[in-house]
Amino acid sequence: MLSLNIRTDKREFIYRQIYNQLKREILLHHFLPNEQLPSKRELSETLNVSVNSVNSAYQQLLAEGYIYSKERSGFFVEKLDTISPSFGTTHTLSPELIEPAESGGHLISFSHMSADRSAFPFDNWLNCERKVLKLKNSDLSDDPTRFPQGIYSVRRTIARFLSLTRGVNSFPEQIVLGSGTQVLVQMLIQLLPVSSTYAMEDPGYRRVYQLLKNQKADIKEIKLDKKGISVNEIKRINPNIVYVTPSHQFPTGIVMPISRRIQLLNWASEAENRYIIEDDYDSEFKYGFDTIPSLQGLDSFERVIYIGTFSKSILPGLRISYMVLPQHLVKKFRERFGFFMQTCNGLAQLTLQNFIDSGEYQKHIKHMRQIYSERRMLLIEELEKRFAGSITIYGAKAGLHFMATFETKRSAEEIIIRAKKDKLELYSLNRCYLSQDNLFNKPAFILGFANLPVEKIGEAVDRLYRAVFQ
Amino acid sequence: MLSLNIRTDKREFIYRQIYNQLKREILLHHFLPNEQLPSKRELSETLNVSVNSVNSAYQQLLAEGYIYSKERSGFFVEKLDTISPSFGTTHTLSPELIEPAESGGHLISFSHMSADRSAFPFDNWLNCERKVLKLKNSDLSDDPTRFPQGIYSVRRTIARFLSLTRGVNSFPEQIVLGSGTQVLVQMLIQLLPVSSTYAMEDPGYRRVYQLLKNQKADIKEIKLDKKGISVNEIKRINPNIVYVTPSHQFPTGIVMPISRRIQLLNWASEAENRYIIEDDYDSEFKYGFDTIPSLQGLDSFERVIYIGTFSKSILPGLRISYMVLPQHLVKKFRERFGFFMQTCNGLAQLTLQNFIDSGEYQKHIKHMRQIYSERRMLLIEELEKRFAGSITIYGAKAGLHFMATFETKRSAEEIIIRAKKDKLELYSLNRCYLSQDNLFNKPAFILGFANLPVEKIGEAVDRLYRAVFQ
Repeated sequence: MLSLNIRTDKREFIYRQIYNQLKREILLHHFLPNEQLPSKRELSETLNVSVNSVNSAYQQLLAEGYIYSKERSGFFVEKLDTISPSFGTTHTLSPELIEPAESGGHLISFSHMSADRSAFPFDNWLNCERKVLKLKNSDLSDDPTRFPQGIYSVRRTIARFLSLTRGVNSFPEQIVLGSGTQVLVQMLIQLLPVSSTYAMEDPGYRRVYQLLKNQKADIKEIKLDKKGISVNEIKRINPNIVYVTPSHQFPTGIVMPISRRIQLLNWASEAENRYIIEDDYDSEFKYGFDTIPSLQGLDSFERVIYIGTFSKSILPGLRISYMVLPQHLVKKFRERFGFFMQTCNGLAQLTLQNFIDSGEYQKHIKHMRQIYSERRMLLIEELEKRFAGSITIYGAKAGLHFMATFETKRSAEEIIIRAKKDKLELYSLNRCYLSQDNLFNKPAFILGFANLPVEKIGEAVDRLYRAVFQ
Repeated sequence: MLSLNIRTDKREFIYRQIYNQLKREILLHHFLPNEQLPSKRELSETLNVSVNSVNSAYQQLLAEGYIYSKERSGFFVEKLDTISPSFGTTHTLSPELIEPAESGGHLISFSHMSADRSAFPFDNWLNCERKVLKLKNSDLSDDPTRFPQGIYSVRRTIARFLSLTRGVNSFPEQIVLGSGTQVLVQMLIQLLPVSSTYAMEDPGYRRVYQLLKNQKADIKEIKLDKKGISVNEIKRINPNIVYVTPSHQFPTGIVMPISRRIQLLNWASEAENRYIIEDDYDSEFKYGFDTIPSLQGLDSFERVIYIGTFSKSILPGLRISYMVLPQHLVKKFRERFGFFMQTCNGLAQLTLQNFIDSGEYQKHIKHMRQIYSERRMLLIEELEKRFAGSITIYGAKAGLHFMATFETKRSAEEIIIRAKKDKLELYSLNRCYLSQDNLFNKPAFILGFANLPVEKIGEAVDRLYRAVFQ
C-alpha cells in the first residue's frame, strides 16, 4: 500500500508533493519494475486530495519517463537501472574555490585595465538606447546567426569612424565584431596559415601570449629597442606573423616611428604568408598631439589585421571589440565561421552605433582626453616631487598608463606585497615579460591612472612611497 | 623650395593641411634623408599662416617619427625606407564579399533560432537597468579581468535560480558566464582530458559539431532511438565525452526519459575521464507539464557539465550563456583561464540579475509560455488541416520548434528554394545530420514558431503548402 505524506499546510503544491514523493520511491526501487500504480481515483481518495492533483503528478512522471501508461489498464512503473541519486546528499564547496562575494572596496588602484566610470555619460548612453528601442530595429530580434560578423549597420558606422580617426581603410564587410580582443584573436588564428610562427613584443601583452600558448601556437618573443619591436630581430628569428601595439606599445609606451613602421610593412610584403596584427588598444588617448594614424592605413598589400576596442574608451564591461580583416581573410572567415554566433550584445551594438553617429562618442573622448591628460600630468608631478631623483618615467604622452622604475633595494614583489597591505593595487612590469628577464636592474611598474581620481593622487603616491621605501 | 597648397576655405584645419602635405612629400621621398625643413617662422611666412599652425604640424610629424629635431638647429627629415603607400590608391570591395545592408524585411520565418521581440517587456528591462546604474555598483566599472567567470553576485542569482527551476546543484563558484554557448564550449574543451573522444547526437546541434571539428577534436556521431541518444551505441563506439540535449533533443524534440538518463549517468561514472555535457538550450518552455529536471541534478559523481542560455528566453542578442562546472574543473578553469576576460556585457549581466531577483524574469517566462503554447497549438492545427494526411509531426510539447515530415515527391532542397522565392524562411532537417543520411525517406523540416505571430500562421502555412506541393 502506497504511503505518501501530503501536507496541505506546506507551500509546495499538492501535485508537486505527490510527484516528488513518487519519484523518490521509484528511484529508490521501492516499486517493482512494471508494478501498477493505484488508479488516479484510488490514490486521490487515499490521500484525500483532488483527482486533478494526482493527474498532474502522473502526467509529469509520464513526461519524464518514470512511469508508462497502458490504455484502459492504468499506470505502471518503468524498469530503471540503479543509481546513487544525489538528492538528499549535502554538497559542500571545496574551501580553495571560495571567492569573496564583494570586489575590493576602498582600494586605490594603479590598474591599467580600468576606465573611469564616474565620467561616463550614462544618461546620454541611455538616451541612445531608448532611441534604438523606439526604432524597433529588426536587427534586435534577429538571431545572431544571421550576422556572424556583427550587425551590418553597426559595422558601417565603425568603418566610417575608423577611417576618420585612425586612417584605417575598410569596408563594413571587412569588420568582425567580438566580445573582447581575446575572442577575436582566437578566431583569427584559425584564419591564418596553419603552421605559423608568431612573434610578440617582449615585454608585451601577456593575455594574448597566454591565449596563443593555450592554442599551442608557436610563439617567439622579440626584444624591443627604442623604436619598438626590432625588425632585425624579426628577420633573424623569422616568424611569419607579428603581433604589435605600434600606437602605444604595451607596456613601455613607445610610439613606433614611421621609419620602423615602413620597415615592418616592407618585411610583411616580402612573403605570401606574412601578417602583422596591429592591436590599437588605447589609440584614442594622445595628449599634446593628435592620434597616430594606424599601420593598417599605410598597408597596400593586405598584410595588416587591425584590432581595436571600445573597452578603454567607453567602459571595460561593454565588451565590444573589432578586427578589420584583409579581404582574402574575410572570405576565409565566412567559410570557417559562418556557423559562429556573434558574441556582442545586440542592444549594446546598436546603442554604440547611435552613440557614435550622434557625435556623443567623440564628445566623450574629447572630455576624457582632458580628464586623463590632467590626471597624468598631476600624477607625474606628484611622483617626481615625492620620489625626487629616485624615479624614472617612461612612455609617450599617450594612453592610460605609463611605466616607472625606482631606485630602491626592495624587489618588485616585495613592493607589491607591501602595497597590497596598504590597500594599493599595483602591477609590476614583470607580468609583461614573456621570456626574458627584467630589462631594468630595478623594480619597474605599470602605473595606470584611468581609475585614479585627482583627489586621490596624493594618497596614492603616499602609499606607493611607503611601499617602495618605508 | 617647399610648395604647399594651403586653403583657408577648406573645412580641414590649417595645421592638418600642412601635416598631411608634408607627410605625403616625405613618404614620396621628395625630401632627402636628413634634409632640413624650413624653420617654423620661415614656413609660416611663406604660407601666410600662424606659427602655431606650423608648430602643431611639426609636433605631430615629430610624434609620428617623420622628422626629428636637433636643439638650436631645427627640424630634419628622417631617413625612411621606400614603401608603396596606399594613400591615394582606390580600394574596391571584391563583389563576392558584398553583404546586403538590410536584413530580410517582409519574410515569414520558421526559424528556430529566433525569439519574439515584440512580447519582451523592454520597459521593465530598462527599469532594471536604471536601478543598476543608480546603485553605482562598482562591478560595473571594474575591469572584466577581475572576474573571469562573470560578476559574482550575478552568478549567485543564477545558481539560486537554477536550483529552483532546473534542480541544478551548484555554488556560484562553479558557474562560468560567456557570451554564447560556443564561447563556453571553446573554453570547456581546453579543460577536458586532452585526447578525448566526443560523441554527439545525430541528428544534432551542428554549430557545436562544427566548433569541435574546427578545434580538431575527435568526434563520433551517435544515432538516436526513441529515447534519445543510444547508450548501447555509446558503449560500442566508446567515446569519453557525450554532448546531449536531454530536456528537448535538438532537433527531434525527444525528452530523454529517466531510464535513459540513469543509464547515461551510470556509464559516465564507470571511468575517471568520462563526462556528459548537458546542453539545456530551451528548457524553459514546456507546455502542459512542468519543466524536466536537469541531468546535472541527478549526478553525484561530478560528471555532468550543465550549459544553459538566456538567449531563448530573453533575446538572442543578449548573449549571456553559462556553464556549471564540476568543482575539479573549476580549479582547472582558474589555472587555465585566469587571464581570460569575461565576455559578457557587464551592464547586461547586472540588469539580468535585477530582472531575475525582482521576479520579472519568471513573470516573463510564464507569459511567453502561454504565447508560445498557443502558437504551437494553432500552427499544428493549421498544418494538419491544410496538409491533411500528408504531414507527420514529431517532438514533445516543448521548446520553440517541432519537426515535421511531408509526403511529397519534392526534395527538401527544392522545397526550400521554392519557399525562399515565396519569402518563407525554412530549415531542413538535413542541416542537422552530422554524418548519416536522412532518417526519413521524405523531406523533414524544423518548424520554429518563436518569431511567427498568430496572425501570420495562416499565411505561413499557405506558403509552406505551395512550396511542398504546388
